[in-house]
Amino acid sequence: MTIDRAVRSFDVERHGADATGAGEARADEVAVEEPLEVRISGETLAITMRTPGHDRELVLGFLLAEGVIASADDVSRLVHCGRTTDEGRDNTIDVTLAPGVKPPVDQETGMLARRGTLVTSACGVCGRRSIDDLLARAAPLHDEGRVARSVLTDAVEGLRERQPVFSRTGGCHAASLVSFAGEHVATFEDVGRHNAVDKVVGSRLLAGAVPLEGHVLVASGRSSFEIVQKALSAGIPVVASVSAPSSLAIDLARRANVTLAGFVRGGAMTIYAGRDRVAP
Amino acid sequence: MTIDRAVRSFDVERHGADATGAGEARADEVAVEEPLEVRISGETLAITMRTPGHDRELVLGFLLAEGVIASADDVSRLVHCGRTTDEGRDNTIDVTLAPGVKPPVDQETGMLARRGTLVTSACGVCGRRSIDDLLARAAPLHDEGRVARSVLTDAVEGLRERQPVFSRTGGCHAASLVSFAGEHVATFEDVGRHNAVDKVVGSRLLAGAVPLEGHVLVASGRSSFEIVQKALSAGIPVVASVSAPSSLAIDLARRANVTLAGFVRGGAMTIYAGRDRVAP
Repeated sequence: MTIDRAVRSFDVERHGADATGAGEARADEVAVEEPLEVRISGETLAITMRTPGHDRELVLGFLLAEGVIASADDVSRLVHCGRTTDEGRDNTIDVTLAPGVKPPVDQETGMLARRGTLVTSACGVCGRRSIDDLLARAAPLHDEGRVARSVLTDAVEGLRERQPVFSRTGGCHAASLVSFAGEHVATFEDVGRHNAVDKVVGSRLLAGAVPLEGHVLVASGRSSFEIVQKALSAGIPVVASVSAPSSLAIDLARRANVTLAGFVRGGAMTIYAGRDRVAP
Repeated sequence: MTIDRAVRSFDVERHGADATGAGEARADEVAVEEPLEVRISGETLAITMRTPGHDRELVLGFLLAEGVIASADDVSRLVHCGRTTDEGRDNTIDVTLAPGVKPPVDQETGMLARRGTLVTSACGVCGRRSIDDLLARAAPLHDEGRVARSVLTDAVEGLRERQPVFSRTGGCHAASLVSFAGEHVATFEDVGRHNAVDKVVGSRLLAGAVPLEGHVLVASGRSSFEIVQKALSAGIPVVASVSAPSSLAIDLARRANVTLAGFVRGGAMTIYAGRDRVAP
């Protein structure tokens, strides 16, 4: 398998467990996340965030799981589309179903029953476009507070101690909100990482405490575009995780001035975006 | 946080690393996964798979991230709805937006721009309903072959060795297909676990080899409803994972006669469904 399109290199700042002061500038490889728009005869069926490569396989498998096709013979044509000069060309696939195969139509609207959380009618979706759309309604953050590295470390390590469902089941995501001063605000668990983040933000909405300047969002698992998007929407200036971010999460964090720290483990961490907000 | 609704107990079969022959019957606690339908003034906006509990927080956080609301004041009412005798009552929430707050309308259809991969217009969605809908188009599997536990162990442990993107980035999901005889068929990586599974299935569609009887699907991370759904749609009779399944994944696997093994580590494993298909 070729992985050239699946990995991208970013300039990051790496802090070891016993480092004080400035970290080490270095290049770090990150898994690529880009939107893929799936169209049936030109009409949008779904947009999914995926790692580029083997898009034909991805689309066929998706159509089978959704009950749209029963075999590869149910598809007569499957091509990347869009203008060749458009960065989004590789991120749009148009499917022509074989004669007699019915597209999934919404009975109420007579149009395709769409899938996915991102809905756009633009041809040629791309990562930059996804970020532009988001920044059109959520301005970059201008929180000028600073947070100590030890607070990020403690917040990430403290998450595990606040996961009663995980403790009993061994399988459940969680998200926490911690203040820059290190004070724990809220933790929620859910089988979906994005849901755990929504519950954290929703609890602060109920408390009338949004936007959440001066706070850190910690989520279990990896930091995807969606996690940074949710932090941005809630005005949370720092996202920290025990695991890796995706390329689009880094792109968005840099554009939106969100601090993004990954691999926060045993006192060490890698800072992918917004390092000015992190104090020694 | 009360976690009564977030955890369910299942009768499982546990095999230790050095066990031969029959495993130990025991109860195992599993994180609950159930669909939640979010409606705005009675019309479906989204269906998301989540762990029950703190649904109000979940919905408010979701609406903020989607740009529908800017504060809790933008919602005038938020209640669980549906018939009280209906199991799905707790899985439907109806939102009334405050006067002047516009719902997200699809410009082409004039209806709500829906989110989520599961689309139904039924009031009172519930886990049983989700499974019924799925089994209406994908019959339970009748594969009578058997697979040795050692094949499951080797398949799960072999996944890590076939993840070049993960090796370079430390953050990427993967899925493999392995035959009951232990032969490796395909592995794909993706930032989305569900995408990795779609790529595996799609590659076999291109090879004209679906349905995939006599094969094991291995996915990194947890086994959710969606992973078992994709296996069922492709006719894959066995799903194995290094991590935990969700409650709805187990419910579906049992109804659809899919074998589901979790915590496959170091020769040990827990069998949650379809144990007859697993040989010593």
